[in-house]
Amino acid sequence: MSKRTIIRLSKYKNALYRLKKMGFVKVFSDNLADAVGVTPAQVRKDFSMFGISGNKRGGYTVAELVEKLNKILGKDKVQDVIVVGTGHIGTAMMNYRGFEKENIRIVAGFDIDPAKYNADEKIPVLQLDKMRGYVKEHGIRVGIIAVPDIAAQQVLEIMVSAGIKGILNFAPINLKGEEDTVINNVNLGLELENIIYFINTDKKGVINEDTDA
Amino acid sequence: MSKRTIIRLSKYKNALYRLKKMGFVKVFSDNLADAVGVTPAQVRKDFSMFGISGNKRGGYTVAELVEKLNKILGKDKVQDVIVVGTGHIGTAMMNYRGFEKENIRIVAGFDIDPAKYNADEKIPVLQLDKMRGYVKEHGIRVGIIAVPDIAAQQVLEIMVSAGIKGILNFAPINLKGEEDTVINNVNLGLELENIIYFINTDKKGVINEDTDA
Repeated sequence: MSKRTIIRLSKYKNALYRLKKMGFVKVFSDNLADAVGVTPAQVRKDFSMFGISGNKRGGYTVAELVEKLNKILGKDKVQDVIVVGTGHIGTAMMNYRGFEKENIRIVAGFDIDPAKYNADEKIPVLQLDKMRGYVKEHGIRVGIIAVPDIAAQQVLEIMVSAGIKGILNFAPINLKGEEDTVINNVNLGLELENIIYFINTDKKGVINEDTDA
Repeated sequence: MSKRTIIRLSKYKNALYRLKKMGFVKVFSDNLADAVGVTPAQVRKDFSMFGISGNKRGGYTVAELVEKLNKILGKDKVQDVIVVGTGHIGTAMMNYRGFEKENIRIVAGFDIDPAKYNADEKIPVLQLDKMRGYVKEHGIRVGIIAVPDIAAQQVLEIMVSAGIKGILNFAPINLKGEEDTVINNVNLGLELENIIYFINTDKKGVINEDTDA
Protein backbone atom coordinates (compact mmCIF):
# COMPACT_ATOMS: atom_id res chain seq x y z
CA MET A 1 0.00 0.00 0.00
CA SER A 2 1.46 3.30 -1.06
CA LYS A 3 1.20 6.62 0.72
CA ARG A 4 -0.81 7.84 -2.24
CA THR A 5 -3.42 5.13 -1.76
CA ILE A 6 -3.84 6.14 1.86
CA ILE A 7 -4.06 9.81 0.95
CA ARG A 8 -6.79 8.97 -1.53
CA LEU A 9 -8.71 6.95 1.07
CA SER A 10 -8.49 9.92 3.46
CA LYS A 11 -9.72 12.24 0.74
CA TYR A 12 -12.65 9.98 -0.10
CA LYS A 13 -13.55 9.97 3.55
CA ASN A 14 -13.35 13.78 3.79
CA ALA A 15 -15.48 14.20 0.68
CA LEU A 16 -18.00 11.73 2.15
CA TYR A 17 -18.28 13.81 5.35
CA ARG A 18 -19.15 16.83 3.26
CA LEU A 19 -21.65 14.91 1.12
CA LYS A 20 -23.23 13.46 4.25
CA LYS A 21 -23.71 16.98 5.63
CA MET A 22 -25.42 17.88 2.35
CA GLY A 23 -27.89 15.04 2.84
CA PHE A 24 -26.38 12.42 0.53
CA VAL A 25 -27.35 8.86 1.41
CA LYS A 26 -25.86 7.16 -1.63
CA VAL A 27 -22.81 8.05 -3.64
CA PHE A 28 -21.27 6.80 -6.90
CA SER A 29 -17.65 6.32 -7.85
CA ASP A 30 -18.07 9.20 -10.31
CA ASN A 31 -19.05 11.54 -7.45
CA LEU A 32 -15.99 10.66 -5.40
CA ALA A 33 -13.78 10.81 -8.48
CA ASP A 34 -14.97 14.37 -9.15
CA ALA A 35 -14.50 15.44 -5.54
CA VAL A 36 -11.00 14.03 -5.23
CA GLY A 37 -9.73 14.57 -8.76
CA VAL A 38 -9.10 10.97 -9.84
CA THR A 39 -10.82 8.65 -12.31
CA PRO A 40 -13.91 6.64 -11.30
CA ALA A 41 -11.93 3.48 -12.12
CA GLN A 42 -9.31 4.51 -9.55
CA VAL A 43 -12.02 4.92 -6.89
CA ARG A 44 -13.43 1.47 -7.61
CA LYS A 45 -9.95 -0.07 -7.67
CA ASP A 46 -9.07 1.48 -4.31
CA PHE A 47 -12.30 0.28 -2.73
CA SER A 48 -12.12 -3.24 -4.09
CA MET A 49 -8.54 -3.49 -2.78
CA PHE A 50 -10.07 -3.25 0.69
CA GLY A 51 -13.01 -5.49 -0.04
CA ILE A 52 -15.49 -2.63 -0.37
CA SER A 53 -17.97 -3.29 -3.14
CA GLY A 54 -20.85 -1.22 -4.43
CA ASN A 55 -24.41 -2.34 -5.07
CA LYS A 56 -25.79 -3.49 -8.41
CA ARG A 57 -26.06 0.00 -9.87
CA GLY A 58 -22.51 0.80 -8.79
CA GLY A 59 -23.43 3.00 -5.85
CA TYR A 60 -22.27 2.93 -2.25
CA THR A 61 -24.11 3.82 0.95
CA VAL A 62 -22.45 6.93 2.41
CA ALA A 63 -22.77 5.92 6.08
CA GLU A 64 -21.39 2.42 5.48
CA LEU A 65 -18.55 3.75 3.37
CA VAL A 66 -17.52 6.28 6.04
CA GLU A 67 -17.52 3.56 8.68
CA LYS A 68 -15.44 1.20 6.56
CA LEU A 69 -12.93 3.88 5.62
CA ASN A 70 -12.56 4.99 9.23
CA LYS A 71 -11.88 1.43 10.25
CA ILE A 72 -9.28 0.97 7.51
CA LEU A 73 -7.67 4.28 8.45
CA GLY A 74 -7.57 3.35 12.14
CA LYS A 75 -9.87 6.18 13.11
CA ASP A 76 -12.49 4.26 14.97
CA LYS A 77 -10.67 5.16 18.20
CA VAL A 78 -9.18 8.41 19.52
CA GLN A 79 -5.46 8.86 18.84
CA ASP A 80 -3.53 11.10 21.24
CA VAL A 81 -0.71 13.12 19.66
CA ILE A 82 2.01 15.39 21.07
CA VAL A 83 3.70 18.34 19.37
CA VAL A 84 7.40 19.07 19.92
CA GLY A 85 8.37 22.66 19.12
CA THR A 86 5.70 25.30 19.65
CA GLY A 87 6.72 27.93 17.10
CA HIS A 88 4.34 28.96 14.34
CA ILE A 89 3.93 25.56 12.74
CA GLY A 90 3.71 23.69 16.05
CA THR A 91 1.11 26.15 17.31
CA ALA A 92 -0.80 25.85 14.03
CA MET A 93 -0.98 22.09 14.53
CA MET A 94 -2.03 22.47 18.19
CA ASN A 95 -4.88 24.73 17.04
CA TYR A 96 -5.85 22.81 13.91
CA ARG A 97 -9.62 22.52 13.96
CA GLY A 98 -9.98 19.59 11.63
CA PHE A 99 -8.50 16.98 13.98
CA GLU A 100 -11.38 16.46 16.36
CA LYS A 101 -13.74 14.99 13.79
CA GLU A 102 -10.90 12.67 12.74
CA ASN A 103 -10.62 11.29 16.27
CA ILE A 104 -7.20 12.92 16.62
CA ARG A 105 -6.51 14.74 19.88
CA ILE A 106 -3.43 16.91 20.40
CA VAL A 107 -2.76 16.42 24.11
CA ALA A 108 0.41 18.44 24.82
CA GLY A 109 3.14 20.59 23.34
CA PHE A 110 6.81 20.60 24.36
CA ASP A 111 9.44 23.30 23.96
CA ILE A 112 12.89 24.22 25.25
CA ASP A 113 11.90 27.90 25.65
CA PRO A 114 10.63 28.54 29.22
CA ALA A 115 8.64 31.54 27.92
CA LYS A 116 6.39 29.07 26.10
CA TYR A 117 5.54 26.90 29.12
CA ASN A 118 1.93 26.92 30.13
CA ALA A 119 0.78 23.88 32.06
CA ASP A 120 -2.69 25.31 32.70
CA GLU A 121 -3.90 25.58 29.12
CA LYS A 122 -6.37 23.11 27.68
CA ILE A 123 -3.44 21.79 25.63
CA PRO A 124 -0.49 22.39 27.99
CA VAL A 125 2.96 23.41 26.77
CA LEU A 126 5.56 21.65 28.91
CA GLN A 127 9.34 21.68 29.06
CA LEU A 128 11.10 19.36 26.65
CA ASP A 129 12.74 17.49 29.56
CA LYS A 130 9.32 16.20 30.55
CA MET A 131 8.48 14.78 27.14
CA ARG A 132 9.96 11.33 27.65
CA GLY A 133 8.13 10.82 30.95
CA TYR A 134 4.86 12.16 29.51
CA VAL A 135 4.98 9.86 26.48
CA LYS A 136 5.66 6.80 28.64
CA GLU A 137 3.06 7.67 31.25
CA HIS A 138 0.29 8.34 28.70
CA GLY A 139 1.28 5.67 26.18
CA ILE A 140 1.56 8.22 23.35
CA ARG A 141 2.40 6.63 20.00
CA VAL A 142 2.26 9.59 17.59
CA GLY A 143 4.15 12.90 17.63
CA ILE A 144 4.74 15.97 15.49
CA ILE A 145 8.22 17.49 15.14
CA ALA A 146 8.14 21.26 14.53
CA VAL A 147 11.61 22.26 15.75
CA PRO A 148 14.45 23.84 13.72
CA ASP A 149 16.31 21.42 11.47
CA ILE A 150 19.45 21.31 13.64
CA ALA A 151 17.41 20.02 16.61
CA ALA A 152 15.21 17.58 14.71
CA GLN A 153 17.34 14.41 14.73
CA GLN A 154 17.96 14.64 18.49
CA VAL A 155 14.28 15.26 19.21
CA LEU A 156 13.40 12.28 17.01
CA GLU A 157 15.71 10.03 19.00
CA ILE A 158 14.23 11.10 22.34
CA MET A 159 10.70 10.56 21.01
CA VAL A 160 11.45 7.12 19.64
CA SER A 161 13.29 6.03 22.80
CA ALA A 162 10.22 7.05 24.79
CA GLY A 163 8.00 4.78 22.70
CA ILE A 164 6.65 6.94 19.88
CA LYS A 165 6.04 4.94 16.69
CA GLY A 166 4.72 7.51 14.21
CA ILE A 167 6.16 10.95 13.47
CA LEU A 168 5.07 13.84 11.28
CA ASN A 169 8.19 15.95 10.70
CA PHE A 170 8.00 19.60 9.61
CA ALA A 171 11.69 20.35 10.17
CA PRO A 172 13.17 20.91 6.70
CA ILE A 173 15.42 17.87 6.89
CA ASN A 174 14.80 14.30 5.78
CA LEU A 175 14.64 12.39 9.07
CA LYS A 176 15.30 8.69 9.15
CA GLY A 177 14.30 6.36 11.96
CA GLU A 178 14.62 2.75 12.96
CA GLU A 179 12.68 0.05 11.17
CA ASP A 180 9.75 0.05 13.56
CA THR A 181 9.14 3.81 13.29
CA VAL A 182 6.99 5.54 10.66
CA ILE A 183 8.17 8.99 9.62
CA ASN A 184 6.34 11.37 7.31
CA ASN A 185 8.64 14.23 6.26
CA VAL A 186 6.71 17.32 5.10
CA ASN A 187 8.81 20.21 3.83
CA LEU A 188 6.62 23.28 3.41
CA GLY A 189 9.36 25.14 1.56
CA LEU A 190 9.52 22.40 -1.09
CA GLU A 191 5.77 22.56 -1.59
CA LEU A 192 6.08 26.21 -2.54
CA GLU A 193 9.15 25.61 -4.68
CA ASN A 194 7.24 23.03 -6.71
CA ILE A 195 4.69 25.63 -7.73
CA ILE A 196 7.36 28.08 -8.78
CA TYR A 197 8.94 25.41 -10.94
CA PHE A 198 5.62 24.63 -12.58
CA ILE A 199 4.66 28.22 -13.37
CA ASN A 200 8.12 28.92 -14.71
CA THR A 201 7.92 26.02 -17.11
CA ASP A 202 4.34 26.70 -18.17
CA LYS A 203 3.02 23.40 -16.90
CA LYS A 204 -0.51 23.97 -15.69
CA GLY A 205 -3.27 22.34 -13.69
CA VAL A 206 -3.58 20.87 -10.24
CA ILE A 207 -0.30 19.30 -9.14
CA ASN A 208 -1.57 15.83 -8.60
CA GLU A 209 0.20 13.04 -6.82
CA ASP A 210 -2.94 11.10 -6.15
CA THR A 211 -3.25 8.95 -9.20
CA ASP A 212 -0.96 5.98 -9.43
CA ALA A 213 0.93 6.29 -12.68
CA MET B 1 7.27 15.50 -15.40
CA SER B 2 5.62 14.39 -12.19
CA LYS B 3 5.39 16.28 -8.93
CA ARG B 4 7.56 13.60 -7.40
CA THR B 5 10.36 14.24 -9.88
CA ILE B 6 10.33 17.90 -9.00
CA ILE B 7 10.30 17.14 -5.29
CA ARG B 8 13.33 14.92 -5.77
CA LEU B 9 15.17 17.64 -7.73
CA SER B 10 14.45 20.09 -4.88
CA LYS B 11 15.70 17.57 -2.35
CA TYR B 12 18.91 16.96 -4.30
CA LYS B 13 19.47 20.69 -4.40
CA ASN B 14 18.88 21.04 -0.64
CA ALA B 15 21.25 18.16 0.10
CA LEU B 16 23.83 19.78 -2.20
CA TYR B 17 23.62 23.06 -0.25
CA ARG B 18 24.40 21.17 2.94
CA LEU B 19 27.27 19.22 1.34
CA LYS B 20 28.70 22.44 -0.09
CA LYS B 21 28.71 23.97 3.39
CA MET B 22 30.63 20.92 4.58
CA GLY B 23 33.28 21.54 1.95
CA PHE B 24 32.24 19.00 -0.69
CA VAL B 25 33.47 19.86 -4.20
CA LYS B 26 32.41 16.63 -5.90
CA VAL B 27 29.50 14.37 -5.19
CA PHE B 28 28.39 10.93 -6.42
CA SER B 29 24.93 9.61 -7.18
CA ASP B 30 25.32 7.30 -4.18
CA ASN B 31 25.80 10.32 -1.89
CA LEU B 32 22.66 12.03 -3.12
CA ALA B 33 20.75 8.75 -3.03
CA ASP B 34 21.66 8.32 0.65
CA ALA B 35 20.76 11.92 1.51
CA VAL B 36 17.39 11.83 -0.22
CA GLY B 37 16.41 8.21 0.36
CA VAL B 38 16.22 6.96 -3.22
CA THR B 39 18.38 4.59 -5.28
CA PRO B 40 21.53 5.83 -7.04
CA ALA B 41 19.93 4.71 -10.32
CA GLN B 42 16.99 7.04 -9.65
CA VAL B 43 19.39 9.97 -9.10
CA ARG B 44 21.17 9.27 -12.39
CA LYS B 45 17.87 8.80 -14.23
CA ASP B 46 16.53 12.12 -12.91
CA PHE B 47 19.70 13.96 -13.89
CA SER B 48 19.98 12.46 -17.34
CA MET B 49 16.32 13.41 -17.97
CA PHE B 50 17.47 17.04 -17.75
CA GLY B 51 20.68 16.51 -19.70
CA ILE B 52 22.90 16.52 -16.61
CA SER B 53 25.68 13.99 -16.93
CA GLY B 54 28.47 13.08 -14.56
CA ASN B 55 32.17 12.75 -15.33
CA LYS B 56 33.96 9.54 -16.21
CA ARG B 57 34.05 8.23 -12.63
CA GLY B 58 30.35 8.99 -12.21
CA GLY B 59 30.77 12.07 -10.05
CA TYR B 60 29.29 15.53 -10.40
CA THR B 61 30.73 18.93 -9.48
CA VAL B 62 28.66 20.32 -6.60
CA ALA B 63 28.73 23.95 -7.73
CA GLU B 64 27.74 23.09 -11.31
CA LEU B 65 25.00 20.77 -10.15
CA VAL B 66 23.49 23.41 -7.84
CA GLU B 67 23.49 25.93 -10.65
CA LYS B 68 21.84 23.55 -13.10
CA LEU B 69 19.19 22.44 -10.61
CA ASN B 70 18.38 26.05 -9.69
CA LYS B 71 17.95 26.87 -13.34
CA ILE B 72 15.67 23.87 -13.90
CA LEU B 73 13.67 24.77 -10.80
CA GLY B 74 13.32 28.40 -11.89
CA LYS B 75 15.27 29.69 -8.91
CA ASP B 76 17.88 31.73 -10.65
CA LYS B 77 15.68 34.79 -10.07
CA VAL B 78 13.77 36.06 -7.00
CA GLN B 79 10.11 35.03 -6.84
CA ASP B 80 7.77 37.31 -4.88
CA VAL B 81 4.94 35.53 -3.05
CA ILE B 82 1.90 36.76 -1.08
CA VAL B 83 0.10 35.01 1.77
CA VAL B 84 -3.69 35.23 2.14
CA GLY B 85 -4.89 34.48 5.67
CA THR B 86 -2.52 35.32 8.51
CA GLY B 87 -3.55 32.80 11.13
CA HIS B 88 -1.06 30.29 12.49
CA ILE B 89 -0.20 28.62 9.20
CA GLY B 90 -0.10 31.88 7.22
CA THR B 91 2.15 33.45 9.84
CA ALA B 92 4.35 30.36 9.84
CA MET B 93 4.83 30.77 6.10
CA MET B 94 5.53 34.50 6.43
CA ASN B 95 8.24 33.71 8.98
CA TYR B 96 9.66 30.63 7.28
CA ARG B 97 13.42 31.01 7.33
CA GLY B 98 14.25 28.63 4.53
CA PHE B 99 12.79 30.74 1.70
CA GLU B 100 15.49 33.36 1.34
CA LYS B 101 18.21 31.00 0.19
CA GLU B 102 15.70 29.60 -2.33
CA ASN B 103 15.22 33.04 -3.88
CA ILE B 104 11.66 33.11 -2.57
CA ARG B 105 10.51 36.35 -0.94
CA ILE B 106 7.22 36.66 0.94
CA VAL B 107 6.26 40.26 0.23
CA ALA B 108 2.89 40.74 1.93
CA GLY B 109 0.11 39.08 3.89
CA PHE B 110 -3.61 39.76 3.53
CA ASP B 111 -6.44 39.21 6.02
CA ILE B 112 -10.05 40.19 6.58
CA ASP B 113 -9.44 40.80 10.31
CA PRO B 114 -8.56 44.50 10.91
CA ALA B 115 -6.74 43.50 14.12
CA LYS B 116 -4.13 41.80 11.94
CA TYR B 117 -3.35 44.81 9.71
CA ASN B 118 0.13 46.15 10.01
CA ALA B 119 1.37 48.06 7.01
CA ASP B 120 4.63 49.08 8.72
CA GLU B 121 6.13 45.64 9.25
CA LYS B 122 8.93 44.36 7.06
CA ILE B 123 6.32 42.01 5.58
CA PRO B 124 3.15 44.11 5.82
CA VAL B 125 -0.28 42.61 6.59
CA LEU B 126 -2.88 44.43 4.51
CA GLN B 127 -6.64 44.23 4.20
CA LEU B 128 -7.97 41.60 1.84
CA ASP B 129 -9.68 44.27 -0.30
CA LYS B 130 -6.27 45.53 -1.32
CA MET B 131 -5.00 42.18 -2.52
CA ARG B 132 -6.20 42.45 -6.11
CA GLY B 133 -4.61 45.88 -6.58
CA TYR B 134 -1.38 44.78 -4.90
CA VAL B 135 -1.02 41.70 -7.08
CA LYS B 136 -1.60 43.68 -10.27
CA GLU B 137 0.68 46.53 -9.28
CA HIS B 138 3.58 44.27 -8.27
CA GLY B 139 3.08 41.60 -10.91
CA ILE B 140 2.80 38.84 -8.28
CA ARG B 141 2.41 35.36 -9.80
CA VAL B 142 2.49 33.08 -6.75
CA GLY B 143 0.32 33.06 -3.63
CA ILE B 144 -0.36 30.98 -0.53
CA ILE B 145 -3.92 30.34 0.69
CA ALA B 146 -4.13 29.86 4.46
CA VAL B 147 -7.76 30.79 5.11
CA PRO B 148 -10.54 28.55 6.51
CA ASP B 149 -11.97 26.06 4.02
CA ILE B 150 -15.26 27.93 3.57
CA ALA B 151 -13.41 31.04 2.33
CA ALA B 152 -10.83 29.27 0.18
CA GLN B 153 -12.63 29.01 -3.17
CA GLN B 154 -13.62 32.69 -3.15
CA VAL B 155 -10.08 33.76 -2.23
CA LEU B 156 -8.75 31.56 -5.04
CA GLU B 157 -11.00 33.27 -7.57
CA ILE B 158 -9.92 36.75 -6.51
CA MET B 159 -6.27 35.75 -6.67
CA VAL B 160 -6.58 34.20 -10.11
CA SER B 161 -8.58 37.13 -11.48
CA ALA B 162 -5.80 39.44 -10.27
CA GLY B 163 -3.21 37.49 -12.24
CA ILE B 164 -1.82 34.87 -9.86
CA LYS B 165 -0.75 31.70 -11.68
CA GLY B 166 0.56 29.43 -8.90
CA ILE B 167 -1.13 28.67 -5.58
CA LEU B 168 -0.12 26.69 -2.51
CA ASN B 169 -3.35 25.89 -0.67
CA PHE B 170 -3.40 24.92 3.02
CA ALA B 171 -7.19 25.18 3.41
CA PRO B 172 -8.40 21.59 3.98
CA ILE B 173 -10.37 21.47 0.76
CA ASN B 174 -9.33 20.31 -2.70
CA LEU B 175 -9.27 23.55 -4.73
CA LYS B 176 -9.60 23.46 -8.48
CA GLY B 177 -8.64 26.26 -10.82
CA GLU B 178 -8.70 27.11 -14.47
CA GLU B 179 -6.39 25.43 -16.93
CA ASP B 180 -3.68 28.06 -16.75
CA THR B 181 -3.42 27.98 -12.95
CA VAL B 182 -1.20 25.64 -10.92
CA ILE B 183 -2.62 24.60 -7.56
CA ASN B 184 -0.80 22.54 -4.93
CA ASN B 185 -3.25 21.38 -2.25
CA VAL B 186 -1.51 20.51 1.04
CA ASN B 187 -3.75 19.14 3.78
CA LEU B 188 -1.82 19.03 7.05
CA GLY B 189 -4.54 16.99 8.71
CA LEU B 190 -4.21 14.25 6.08
CA GLU B 191 -0.46 14.10 6.60
CA LEU B 192 -1.02 13.24 10.26
CA GLU B 193 -3.82 10.81 9.46
CA ASN B 194 -1.51 8.88 7.15
CA ILE B 195 0.86 8.19 10.00
CA ILE B 196 -1.90 6.96 12.25
CA TYR B 197 -3.04 4.60 9.55
CA PHE B 198 0.47 3.25 9.13
CA ILE B 199 1.16 2.67 12.81
CA ASN B 200 -2.21 1.02 13.27
CA THR B 201 -1.53 -1.45 10.50
CA ASP B 202 2.05 -2.15 11.55
CA LYS B 203 3.56 -0.90 8.32
CA LYS B 204 6.90 0.66 9.15
CA GLY B 205 9.61 2.85 7.69
CA VAL B 206 9.75 6.27 6.12
CA ILE B 207 6.55 7.03 4.21
CA ASN B 208 8.12 7.59 0.86
CA GLU B 209 6.46 9.09 -2.13
CA ASP B 210 9.70 10.03 -3.78
CA THR B 211 10.52 6.94 -5.74
CA ASP B 212 8.59 6.36 -8.89
CA ALA B 213 7.04 2.95 -8.62
